[in-house]
Amino acid sequence: MREAVLAANLALPAHGLVTLTWGNVSGIDRERGLVAIKPSGVPYESMTLADVVLVDLEGNVVEGERRPSTDTPTHLELYRAYDWIGGIVHTHSPFATAWAQALRELPCLGTTHADHFHGPVPVTRQLTAAEIESDYEERTGAVIVEAFVERGLDPLELPAALVASHGPFVWGAEVEDAVENAVALEAVAANAYRSFQLAAGIEAIPPELLEKHFARKHGAGAYYGQPA
Amino acid sequence: MREAVLAANLALPAHGLVTLTWGNVSGIDRERGLVAIKPSGVPYESMTLADVVLVDLEGNVVEGERRPSTDTPTHLELYRAYDWIGGIVHTHSPFATAWAQALRELPCLGTTHADHFHGPVPVTRQLTAAEIESDYEERTGAVIVEAFVERGLDPLELPAALVASHGPFVWGAEVEDAVENAVALEAVAANAYRSFQLAAGIEAIPPELLEKHFARKHGAGAYYGQPA
Amino acid sequence: MREAVLAANLALPAHGLVTLTWGNVSGIDRERGLVAIKPSGVPYESMTLADVVLVDLEGNVVEGERRPSTDTPTHLELYRAYDWIGGIVHTHSPFATAWAQALRELPCLGTTHADHFHGPVPVTRQLTAAEIESDYEERTGAVIVEAFVERGLDPLELPAALVASHGPFVWGAEVEDAVENAVALEAVAANAYRSFQLAAGIEAIPPELLEKHFARKHGAGAYYGQPA
Amino acid sequence: MREAVLAANLALPAHGLVTLTWGNVSGIDRERGLVAIKPSGVPYESMTLADVVLVDLEGNVVEGERRPSTDTPTHLELYRAYDWIGGIVHTHSPFATAWAQALRELPCLGTTHADHFHGPVPVTRQLTAAEIESDYEERTGAVIVEAFVERGLDPLELPAALVASHGPFVWGAEVEDAVENAVALEAVAANAYRSFQLAAGIEAIPPELLEKHFARKHGAGAYYGQPA
Repeated sequence: MREAVLAANLALPAHGLVTLTWGNVSGIDRERGLVAIKPSGVPYESMTLADVVLVDLEGNVVEGERRPSTDTPTHLELYRAYDWIGGIVHTHSPFATAWAQALRELPCLGTTHADHFHGPVPVTRQLTAAEIESDYEERTGAVIVEAFVERGLDPLELPAALVASHGPFVWGAEVEDAVENAVALEAVAANAYRSFQLAAGIEAIPPELLEKHFARKHGAGAYYGQPA
Repeated sequence: MREAVLAANLALPAHGLVTLTWGNVSGIDRERGLVAIKPSGVPYESMTLADVVLVDLEGNVVEGERRPSTDTPTHLELYRAYDWIGGIVHTHSPFATAWAQALRELPCLGTTHADHFHGPVPVTRQLTAAEIESDYEERTGAVIVEAFVERGLDPLELPAALVASHGPFVWGAEVEDAVENAVALEAVAANAYRSFQLAAGIEAIPPELLEKHFARKHGAGAYYGQPA
Repeated sequence: MREAVLAANLALPAHGLVTLTWGNVSGIDRERGLVAIKPSGVPYESMTLADVVLVDLEGNVVEGERRPSTDTPTHLELYRAYDWIGGIVHTHSPFATAWAQALRELPCLGTTHADHFHGPVPVTRQLTAAEIESDYEERTGAVIVEAFVERGLDPLELPAALVASHGPFVWGAEVEDAVENAVALEAVAANAYRSFQLAAGIEAIPPELLEKHFARKHGAGAYYGQPA
Repeated sequence: MREAVLAANLALPAHGLVTLTWGNVSGIDRERGLVAIKPSGVPYESMTLADVVLVDLEGNVVEGERRPSTDTPTHLELYRAYDWIGGIVHTHSPFATAWAQALRELPCLGTTHADHFHGPVPVTRQLTAAEIESDYEERTGAVIVEAFVERGLDPLELPAALVASHGPFVWGAEVEDAVENAVALEAVAANAYRSFQLAAGIEAIPPELLEKHFARKHGAGAYYGQPA
């Protein structure tokens, strides 16, 4: 698992999703209850397997010499809330972050979006001053979960959230899925940004088109890709 | 032909036209009535000649172990409608997709556009719910053809269309021409996007300038490039 | 000179100024009255010294097997009008073309601009239908010259023009200077584009700042760079 | 120190912060009172250790065959004003320059910004004609210092300024910190630019979120990164 997590972290700069050390990927071994995560503030160029840290679901370091990512409590909150998640990616990728900073959900303006996300990607509320002062990173995970509960959204079909004034958190059944969803999110965030510049306030795609494209790739009737 | 189609598919990421596996190229052998097309959901990095699928004009797989692109029925609809087409490219390239998602035709704002496309590149209407539910991909091809018929456009002189809320389909006499047209479409879509940010609602170029530039590259009097 | 012209042409894609074959560089040997120029429609990847064409100032091919760039008459018109020019670059670089297509001169919004161009870069008028139909490429050069004459501009201090609905032509004392000016033009066109998105209609920089920066790099009192 | 300064200068094009020769880095040896700085107008591709110039705090060349950067007096003014600074970076990076040319301070719209800069990055006033005519480069440093004094800002917590109509100057305790801050500034300038296109005039992030993120990385309670 540490190898998959290392590879996934190194995939972030390769896909143009991170600047400096701003981003992190984790993966979980559900049987052992252990999360492998990027070390805090270590450059991608020099990161090795030994830098990946293993923590338990309460955040205790179980293996590794490094301090884990400061965002570890956010990851753990999501792993505790969604027990089907296998991997989580956090980036400050340019266009997804622009929507998060604009405090706007990412509308579904095209089939590219619908292929990966079953509707608009929600933006969280701002944390309160009290939440920021106490367990800030854990509360960041909690407002993501809250956003899904309040809107009645299924995090399995909508594997991403924009944290207000911050940036995207993205997940998936496996670490590799989480990375793919993070790449997809940035691409559709860029598409939607540019569509808005051409036609401000354009409406979301028709619901039947959204359903069709999401169903081509997900669920029992999916027919995109090769048979497993 | 499979080699040309493989090379053309690999040219898409090299030209920055695709993210992940979002794009596909096909080519047709008119004599044999066979279409070579990209397999569905296979990464470009690992794609080989054996992955390219051969189908007939009704979509039956004739050769190859892979499932063909889910967009195959769209390609076939265009091959059936336009018998001079030798290759088709579909991408979600960033700026062309922005126009498609904005539901706006791509206006001809400069000579770069006129060199390749004889007027504005049309955007299709949205598919109806009934069309989406039945033969969605084939109907996607049909609304492209419909857009050309309704506007009285010549697909030979305007080898591209923007599918509403989706992205561009581009064609050409040969597979290589289709790829070149896809590259050109993305570049002029970006130029037009930026021109609109500087001067919203700017008008199309004068018709005589459009005619001049298109004629420099196409038809009996063309004088661009080297003699064949 | 052919080697310098080949190297300069190959520098265009290296600097991100061209897509496909859309761009060309020429250089002149004033003593012999010969212009070396890119062949028409030949890909940069495969261009060799043998592809560079030599023409005289009337456009007759003197050496080379290839057909010269279709834009050759525009280059020649500029060489005839400005006898101190040693090289000319024409591109469809993204941001400079956006201004040209928007029919707007490129305002001087910063010192980066002032370092290279002594004021706003003019946009030409549109050619008339008659001009387009007869000697189109030569007339394209003529409207550039006309724009400088009408505005009382010095092409030595302002080595670039935006041809309306087309793109930039850039020149310099040597071929290498012309390439550098084309790189600078694209960068300042991008800067000005983004500044306009943040503050529409912002005014040009104060004249004394323009004079200072231009004089740091040009003329008798220049003190930028190393002594020759 | 010359090696660190050479490496830092070469890092600028690697990070996409400079076009042509537009940018320079310096570092200071406080004990010896010597500043190492990039030579003026020398291409990054061919720059070697021998090209780096050593000057004293009055600008006299102490070692090196080259003429130092024309911006040297600006660097020296900052080194004299802020005695804890170890390195300074000046670039014309695209998005930071767009804000500088728009004469707008860079607002703090997200946690990415707050991680590096403790509030909005100020823009200086324009220099007067008299200041431009006499000791222009030194006065450029002086208006940066003035902007911090007038606003009561701490340059230690806000290690960057946008010079009006010009571009960013960025600093740090070490040369490497200054380069990292310059990379961060460009990224957050791009984020803020795009956020403004989506939601014009959006307000700065809540002060408690700004404090939290800045404190995660700076000061006694910092917990980002690895223990030194």
